Amino acid sequence: MADVLSGVASPADVRALPEDALPGLCEALREAIITTCGRVGGHLGASLGAVEVVVALHRVFHTPQDALLFDVGHQAYAHKLLTGRRDRMHTLRQADGIAPFLDPRESHHDALAAGHACTAISAALGLLAGRRQLGHSGHVVAVVGDGALTGGLSFEGLNNAGGSPLPLVVVLNDNQMSISANVGAIPALLRTRNARAFFESLGFTYLGPVDGHDLGALTRALREAKASSRPVVVHALTKKGRGFPPAEADEQTRGHAMGPYEWRDGKLVRSRGGRPTYSEAFAQVLGDALERDPRVVAVTPAMLEGSALTGLKARFPDRVHDVGIAEQHAVTFCAGLAAAGAKPVCVIYSTFLQRAYDQVVHDVCLPGLPVVFAVDRAGLVGADGATHQGAYDVSFLRPLPGLTQWAPVVGEDLGPMLATALQASGPSVLRFPRGTLPDLPPELARDGTEAHDARAGAEGGKSSTASRLTPAALPMPGARWLKRVPGSRLTLVTLGPLGLSALEAVRSEPDWSALDARRAWPLDEAALLEAAAGGHVVVAEEGTVRGGLGSAVLELYAASGVSPRVTLLGMPDVFLPHGDARVQRTQLGLDAAGLLRAGRALLGEENR
Amino acid sequence: MADVLSGVASPADVRALPEDALPGLCEALREAIITTCGRVGGHLGASLGAVEVVVALHRVFHTPQDALLFDVGHQAYAHKLLTGRRDRMHTLRQADGIAPFLDPRESHHDALAAGHACTAISAALGLLAGRRQLGHSGHVVAVVGDGALTGGLSFEGLNNAGGSPLPLVVVLNDNQMSISANVGAIPALLRTRNARAFFESLGFTYLGPVDGHDLGALTRALREAKASSRPVVVHALTKKGRGFPPAEADEQTRGHAMGPYEWRDGKLVRSRGGRPTYSEAFAQVLGDALERDPRVVAVTPAMLEGSALTGLKARFPDRVHDVGIAEQHAVTFCAGLAAAGAKPVCVIYSTFLQRAYDQVVHDVCLPGLPVVFAVDRAGLVGADGATHQGAYDVSFLRPLPGLTQWAPVVGEDLGPMLATALQASGPSVLRFPRGTLPDLPPELARDGTEAHDARAGAEGGKSSTASRLTPAALPMPGARWLKRVPGSRLTLVTLGPLGLSALEAVRSEPDWSALDARRAWPLDEAALLEAAAGGHVVVAEEGTVRGGLGSAVLELYAASGVSPRVTLLGMPDVFLPHGDARVQRTQLGLDAAGLLRAGRALLGEENR
Repeated sequence: MADVLSGVASPADVRALPEDALPGLCEALREAIITTCGRVGGHLGASLGAVEVVVALHRVFHTPQDALLFDVGHQAYAHKLLTGRRDRMHTLRQADGIAPFLDPRESHHDALAAGHACTAISAALGLLAGRRQLGHSGHVVAVVGDGALTGGLSFEGLNNAGGSPLPLVVVLNDNQMSISANVGAIPALLRTRNARAFFESLGFTYLGPVDGHDLGALTRALREAKASSRPVVVHALTKKGRGFPPAEADEQTRGHAMGPYEWRDGKLVRSRGGRPTYSEAFAQVLGDALERDPRVVAVTPAMLEGSALTGLKARFPDRVHDVGIAEQHAVTFCAGLAAAGAKPVCVIYSTFLQRAYDQVVHDVCLPGLPVVFAVDRAGLVGADGATHQGAYDVSFLRPLPGLTQWAPVVGEDLGPMLATALQASGPSVLRFPRGTLPDLPPELARDGTEAHDARAGAEGGKSSTASRLTPAALPMPGARWLKRVPGSRLTLVTLGPLGLSALEAVRSEPDWSALDARRAWPLDEAALLEAAAGGHVVVAEEGTVRGGLGSAVLELYAASGVSPRVTLLGMPDVFLPHGDARVQRTQLGLDAAGLLRAGRALLGEENR
Repeated sequence: MADVLSGVASPADVRALPEDALPGLCEALREAIITTCGRVGGHLGASLGAVEVVVALHRVFHTPQDALLFDVGHQAYAHKLLTGRRDRMHTLRQADGIAPFLDPRESHHDALAAGHACTAISAALGLLAGRRQLGHSGHVVAVVGDGALTGGLSFEGLNNAGGSPLPLVVVLNDNQMSISANVGAIPALLRTRNARAFFESLGFTYLGPVDGHDLGALTRALREAKASSRPVVVHALTKKGRGFPPAEADEQTRGHAMGPYEWRDGKLVRSRGGRPTYSEAFAQVLGDALERDPRVVAVTPAMLEGSALTGLKARFPDRVHDVGIAEQHAVTFCAGLAAAGAKPVCVIYSTFLQRAYDQVVHDVCLPGLPVVFAVDRAGLVGADGATHQGAYDVSFLRPLPGLTQWAPVVGEDLGPMLATALQASGPSVLRFPRGTLPDLPPELARDGTEAHDARAGAEGGKSSTASRLTPAALPMPGARWLKRVPGSRLTLVTLGPLGLSALEAVRSEPDWSALDARRAWPLDEAALLEAAAGGHVVVAEEGTVRGGLGSAVLELYAASGVSPRVTLLGMPDVFLPHGDARVQRTQLGLDAAGLLRAGRALLGEENR
C-alpha cells in the first residue's frame, strides 16, 4: 500500500497512474490518514470521506494552473498527501509542522488558506473573476461540505456565483453531516429531488447526485463540469469516516476531530484525558442553570461536541438549540429569545464570534438585551492554529456599550460568573480558554485568607468568599486581589487563568501584589488605581495587547491623571501558528516566569 | 384625507375601520409619508411600497400581543403613523425626534430595533421560540424585503425556521429592488414559479404571489398564514415608491433614501447640496485608479448610490461589482480577487464592515492579501442614527496584524492615500466620514509652510508637499505636522477631519502643536514620541475612545516608558442617537472649542 503512495510526489503523478492503480492509491491514502491522526490527532472523518473526491479532482484538474479551494480544509488531508507533504504528515498540527488546514505558504497547490467554514465559494468566485480580468485561464473549483451550506456566507456566494456568467465549479461533498448532525431545512433538501431544483433555481447547472466513492462516476461528472461554460454544481454523496470502522460507527460525529488514539487488533484504544476541560466545566454549570431556571436556553452554532453540550442536548432537547454553522443566526436568534423574556446563553468559540460581530453590536448590545455569550477557546488554541486563535474577542467587544466581559481563573469561578450574567439586565460575556482545568490553588480555596474581592478588601474588611463559590451574583465592581501587599511597589494585573501564573510569580516576590481583574470591561477602577499607587503595573492577558485589558487600564490611568509605569503582556501582532499552547505561553512570556521577567524589568531590576 | 388618519391613534383603530375606509387610509398614509420625507428626508420608496402590506398586517395581527418585525424598518413609516407617532412624524430623523428605524423604546408596537438588513427572520424565530418556551401565545411575523434575501443571515434564518415546527410567518415584501437593482440569482428566481419551489424546499408553506397593493388579497393571505400551524411565507409583490410619481419613475432607486425636497404642481424640486461629499471625492480618485491600472476592481455591497459609485459602474461595468446586501461575500470575494493578482477596493460603510469582520480577519488579513477597504460613514452619521454610527472600525481593525488604517483630513488626501494603499503588499483601510468636503486650509495647501510630513520634519528638512497632492505613495511612517512649535508644551493629535479642528484650535494657542496621525495603525512612533516630550497630549478621533487611536498612543507611550499626561477624546460609551452631526460634534467636544477646552484642562489652565 505504502508503495503506491511513495511513488506519488505531486498531482502530476496522480494523473500518470493507470486507472486500475487508483483504488490502491485511495486505500493507501486512508491508511496514511488513519495512521497520522492516530499519532497526532486531527480531522479524521471528513478527510476519510473525501479521499475519492480528492483523487478524482486531481485526475481532472491541474493544480496550480487550476485552483482547488477546499472549504475549511477539514476534507483535505488526502490533498496534502498528494501534493508533496506526505513525508511531513506526521508533524500535522505540531509546532513548525504541517498546518491543520490549507495554506498557500505551505504548498502552491493550496489556492487559499481556510480554517473557517463557508468561505470557499466566495473566494473561488473572486479568484476566477480576478484571473479572467487579468487574462489568465484555468479552472477554479470550490469543494464545499454540506455542513457549510447552512452558513450564510455560502449562500451569498451561491447567489452571486449563480447570477454570474463565470464557469465556477462547486463540488458539494455531501456526507449529510456538519461537525455533528446537520441542522435546518437544507440537509433534508439535499437528499431529495429538491436538490436539483434548489441549485438550478440559484442559476447553477446541477450534476448528480453521484456516488462520491465511485471514482469513475466522479471523474465523469468532474470532466463534464470542467467543460461547462457556466456555473455548475457537482453533488457527490460521501460517507464521513469512510474506511475507519470506529468513525463509520459513530453516528454522533463520525470521527470529526479526534485526539491521538491507538488502533489495535481492529479495536480503538482511545485514552481520554482525565481532567475535565473548561468547556466541560462550563457545560456543567450551564446544566445547573437549565435545571434551576426554566427561562434559560442554550444556543450553539454546530459545536455541540466542541463545547461539550451533547449531554445537555440529551437532557434538555427543547432548550439546547444547535443552529448549524450559522453564527450570525445564533446571535440574532438569541436576541429574539431575550426579547421574549428567555435567558439565552450563546456558547461560541472566540474565533467564531468574529463571524457574528455585527449581530452582537446591532441585535444584542444596541437594544441592551440580556444575552450571555460563553466565549470558549479564548486565547491560545494550540494545534488548531492561526485560523482559530482566540486573540481578538476582548478588543472587539470592549467598545460595545453595556457589555460586561467576565473571565474565570479556575473552574470554580464559572458558576458565580454565569449566575451573575444571567441576573444582569444587559448582555455579558464569559471568556474561557481551551484546555483542562487547573487545580484550585490554596489562595483561591474557600478558606483562603489572602484572595478576596477587591471591594471587600478596599473596605478593609475580611471577605467572605463563600458567595464566590456558590452560584450567586458576584459582588461589584468585581476585581479580586489574589495577593495584596500594603505599600507594594508592583502589581501584576491579569485576566483569566493567567491569575494562576501571577500567584506563582508573587511567591518569588513577596512584596508584589496580584490582582485578578475578573472582568475585561467594565473595570474595577478603585482596585486598579490602588495598584497604580505602587508606581508599577504589569497587565497580562491571553489575547492581543491591542485594545485589550491592558489598553483599558491605560485609558483609565490617563483619564484619572495617574502615571504608573505599565508593561502590557499579551499575544503579539502576528497570526500565531499551530503548536503546543504551553510551549507558546512560555515563548510569549505568558507564564509565571514571563510575569516575573516583565515585573523585574519594569522595576529596573536585573533579571535573575 | 388627513381626517381619516387623525381618527387612527392605534392599531385597534385600524381594525375598527370599515373596509371601505381602507383605501382612503392608505392614501392618507402615502400623503403623510410624502409630506414628512419632503420636509426632513427619509426612506421614502420602501415605505410607500409597503403601505397596504402594513395596513393589512394591522388588520389581521394584534400588536403588541402579536409581534411584527420589520427587517431594517425602511418599510415601516406607515407602521409608525398607525401606532401613535403621527403627530411627531415631522421630527423624523431629527435630534430627539422619531427614530429613522424601529425601536421598542419608541413604541411597544415595535417588537425589535433594526437598522441593518437581514435580521428579522432570525430575531422573529427567537422571539417566537422564547415566547413558546415561557408559555406565551401570540403570532410573530417577520416582514422582509426581497433585497434582504441576498444576505446570508436571512438565509441562515430561513434554514433554521424552515426546519423548525414553529409557525413563523414571513411576509416577503418583494419590490424587486434592493437599495438599487437587485443582484444575483435570487431576484430572478422570485418572479418565477421557482419561488414556490425555493421556499417549499426550505420547509415553508408558500402563499402567493399576491398583489401587495390589493388589500383584500393581502388580508386573505395573511389570515391563512395566521391560521397555519407551521412556517409560512406570504409573497407580496409591491412597487417601491408607489404613489409618488418621481419615485416610481426613478428606475435607479425608486426614491430609496431622499434628502428634503419640495413637491410643487406635480413636480419635484429637489435642491442638491452644492459641495461634493467625501464619498464623491473618493469615487473620483477611485475612477482615476480604475482608469490608470487595469488590475483595479471596485466592490460594493448594495451601496452603489450611497457610495457614489453609479457613475463608475456605468464607466466600468465589468470592474465595479455590486454584490447585493452581502457584506461577507463582498470581503471574501475581494480576497479571491487579490489572490488572483487583481487590486480590489471594497467600498463599504463602517457600520456594515462589522458584518464582515471575520472575513477581514480570516480571509484577508491572515493571508495578508492586498485588499483596500474604503470605509465610508466612519464617525458620526447624523440622521441615520444609532444603528449606523461609524464608531467601532478603528478599534476592531487595529488588532489585526498587517492592516494599515489611513484617514484623510481633506479630499486632497484621498488620492495619495488610495495610491499608497494600492501599492501596498498587504491590506489597507481608508476611513472617511459622511458629509461634504471642507475647504483646503492654507496650512494644507500645496505651498503651505507649516504642514509637512513628520518624517521630513523630524529630519529638520523642509518638506516638499508636492508628492502629497499627487497620487504617489505617501512617505512612511506617515504622520503629518499640521503645526509644529519647538518646545511646545502640548500637542493635539487627531485622526481624519478633526485635523481641521486642531488647526483652528492652535490658531488661538500659538504655542501648541498639532499632529495629524494620518494613520490609526501602525503609528508614527517618532512623531508621537516628539509630541510626548512636551508633557501634554490630547488625542481626538471620531470613533470610540475604547481601543481607538488614543488607546494606541497610550500603548506606545507605556511601551516606550514615557509618561506625558494624555487626554483622549472620542465618541462616548453609548449608542449615539440620530441628530445633526455638527451639533453632536459640539456636544461631544469633537470640534475646535472642545479641543481647546481639553487642552487647557490638561494644562491645568482655566478655560476661558
